[in-house]
Amino acid sequence: MLDVVGLIVKKREGGKLSSSEIHGLVAGFVDGKVPDYQMSAWLMAAYLRGLDARETTALTEAMLHSGRSLPLASVGGVKVDKHSTGGVGDKVSICLAPAAAAAGVFVPMIAGRGLGHTGGTLDKLEAIPGYRTRLSDRRFEQVVARVGCSIIGQSEKIAPADRLMYALRDVTGTVESIPLIVASILSKKLAVSLDGLVLDVKAGKGAFMGSVEAARELGRELMKVGRQAGAKVRVIVTDMDAPIGKMIGNALEVVEAIDVLRNAGPPDTVELTVELGAEMCRVAGVVKSTADGRRRMRAVLSDGTALTRFAEMVEAHGGDPKIVDATDRLPRTRHRVPVLAGRGGYVEGIDSKRLGLVTVNLGAGRARVDQAVDHAVGIEIAARVGDRVDAKAPLAWLHVRRPRDAERWAPDVRAAFYLQARAQPVTSTRIIDRLT
Amino acid sequence: MLDVVGLIVKKREGGKLSSSEIHGLVAGFVDGKVPDYQMSAWLMAAYLRGLDARETTALTEAMLHSGRSLPLASVGGVKVDKHSTGGVGDKVSICLAPAAAAAGVFVPMIAGRGLGHTGGTLDKLEAIPGYRTRLSDRRFEQVVARVGCSIIGQSEKIAPADRLMYALRDVTGTVESIPLIVASILSKKLAVSLDGLVLDVKAGKGAFMGSVEAARELGRELMKVGRQAGAKVRVIVTDMDAPIGKMIGNALEVVEAIDVLRNAGPPDTVELTVELGAEMCRVAGVVKSTADGRRRMRAVLSDGTALTRFAEMVEAHGGDPKIVDATDRLPRTRHRVPVLAGRGGYVEGIDSKRLGLVTVNLGAGRARVDQAVDHAVGIEIAARVGDRVDAKAPLAWLHVRRPRDAERWAPDVRAAFYLQARAQPVTSTRIIDRLT
Repeated sequence: MLDVVGLIVKKREGGKLSSSEIHGLVAGFVDGKVPDYQMSAWLMAAYLRGLDARETTALTEAMLHSGRSLPLASVGGVKVDKHSTGGVGDKVSICLAPAAAAAGVFVPMIAGRGLGHTGGTLDKLEAIPGYRTRLSDRRFEQVVARVGCSIIGQSEKIAPADRLMYALRDVTGTVESIPLIVASILSKKLAVSLDGLVLDVKAGKGAFMGSVEAARELGRELMKVGRQAGAKVRVIVTDMDAPIGKMIGNALEVVEAIDVLRNAGPPDTVELTVELGAEMCRVAGVVKSTADGRRRMRAVLSDGTALTRFAEMVEAHGGDPKIVDATDRLPRTRHRVPVLAGRGGYVEGIDSKRLGLVTVNLGAGRARVDQAVDHAVGIEIAARVGDRVDAKAPLAWLHVRRPRDAERWAPDVRAAFYLQARAQPVTSTRIIDRLT
Repeated sequence: MLDVVGLIVKKREGGKLSSSEIHGLVAGFVDGKVPDYQMSAWLMAAYLRGLDARETTALTEAMLHSGRSLPLASVGGVKVDKHSTGGVGDKVSICLAPAAAAAGVFVPMIAGRGLGHTGGTLDKLEAIPGYRTRLSDRRFEQVVARVGCSIIGQSEKIAPADRLMYALRDVTGTVESIPLIVASILSKKLAVSLDGLVLDVKAGKGAFMGSVEAARELGRELMKVGRQAGAKVRVIVTDMDAPIGKMIGNALEVVEAIDVLRNAGPPDTVELTVELGAEMCRVAGVVKSTADGRRRMRAVLSDGTALTRFAEMVEAHGGDPKIVDATDRLPRTRHRVPVLAGRGGYVEGIDSKRLGLVTVNLGAGRARVDQAVDHAVGIEIAARVGDRVDAKAPLAWLHVRRPRDAERWAPDVRAAFYLQARAQPVTSTRIIDRLT
């Protein structure tokens, strides 16, 4: 019989759990034999005492084996997924998956929902009329094989231990632990049999990991454990101080993703799409160098093939492919209210967490996992970092259901823009580091 | 609204919780608003990060105020209780409460049940035919006022937070934390309005705190927090290497307690009774010095007044007072089987934890809180530390229901006696330290 208290005490005292102990604990938790209150005590002990790479690998594998895995045997090519640790305005998955598919990579992507100040790819895709984020395993495999990419939600059969543990961590103050984050990310991703995985680990005010060093550490652990679990892993550490691109909000971000696929996206969203796609091509072996990968990615964005893949993916998921040419078919609010700068200056920074929270408050996100989201509302950024604004220039437009929502949140939006009297040097790239 | 995750994270990061935060957490837990899994995460964070004296005092008071308190207004004298951190063969409460009452102290004692290798005063008292360990608040007060002492169980109305938290700590590896132990002990004890409290903190193989230093630390914290909560507290650190006295088991320990009250008890049980009683007299102010307190205690043991008080208490609780003169009215087993030494030597030590566990296995204790106990079974020690035995001398007698139980456990009992070829110096006192 599993001595759960013994395992809790062992970790509490800083001991190392064997792989079979970790498997027993996770399996018992999923079966209901290990109650929530014991798991949360163990998680807190693990949070404070840490897990080494071997324990983290065992935890990842135990969580992965708690559910079904999708072999995707009929997909005739190299399968690579991307994961980002979550940012504000991060719509990159939506344009990246079809672009990488157009570049020759198969992308079976399991995406998540928004929680807290960050949005979720599934919520954004569901802004597309008809798009279904739940497909049967068979249908998912067919779409990946035929279109080259499919973005779906984590089904209940995939890594149920992760779903249960994440829900528990969320309410027990045990979220921000590198080994627990690593196991959570990788157990979901590796449930789909992947040849490679590219990770976008974000650092900065709008990111989960505030400091670059913490982001690097998370990236290194992801790489180490991912490799121990048998996948090729590449990590890019990217800047998440200011929101990505111009749009924050579900339908608004789909519009921007389509802009990227039309080769008309904001430079930073395009850069992230190209760089992450180049790494995906590299991992998949469809190009010889990252530079080749970048060229390939720019080509599929400019020649329309990436956009076509996107329309095919949308259609395969039951969505309306005409949105590609007519984004006004996406949900829109009646009101688009400018937030004026009020004083002149140079935009030195934009607090993405603050804007993310305003977006949630407008209804685009959720504070609890069971809340419905409003797909239409959001923030459209007018003044980017480095821009000069005068007092009457808009910093942003609020897409709101009622004018009074704009009144209510305008001061917060204004406060999110840091204005300086003088122009500041602006870095032109979001790429901070590549870990190999 | 209570931000429970915020309180967990604060403690996880080593922060200090305010008194109102601790009160909110405890009240929410008792109300069911804070679920077990959040409380267990907080408890693990508190275990690993610690609580300072102010937080421990706040926790104690929050747990105390989670239930009803008993003012005992009609008791016309100074009220002092004693608590021991739990040992093997510790029947001292049973003789101490009536002896201290005979010495002029009012003793409203809330006692506990056995769990693990240690026995519980309530289980022992219930070996007395008819003795009820649950009385109404009014009846308890009457008995204390009239007899001078009453020993009852913790009612569900007293410190329910402690009962709930202890049950959770027991299954989540968060028992052995000094601040949590302090709050648990004091919240129960101080629910009865006490003028003073004498604490017997045990150190050694059979104790909760193995080392003397850990016992001293627990004692210091108990004193500090008890005083902050408004009670006079005295702490004696005592040796719990070898079992106390001769008897281990419920009815057997009542027999020994009666021996003490007849002035015929084993020297160490008598010493603990006299020393703890002397401190109770000191705290109560009924004597001027501890030496006076000792003299008073020895007097009530030798003149029969303590024994009379015991008989009165038993009767007031519905028990059979004739057991005082006829201990054969207590439950007894048919079989009393000697465990022979097998080889000669001097008893250098007795592993009390091991004998405690044998006693539990014979049926006298419980591994789970819902198990019934056998009042008759137990161990009667024949060879005390320092004694010389030859191979055919009994080390102990097992009081068992079936001879095969004795066969089964005799090797364990034998292994609990450390025999040496030469006599070893033996300390003649169990008192290690007094904290003032």
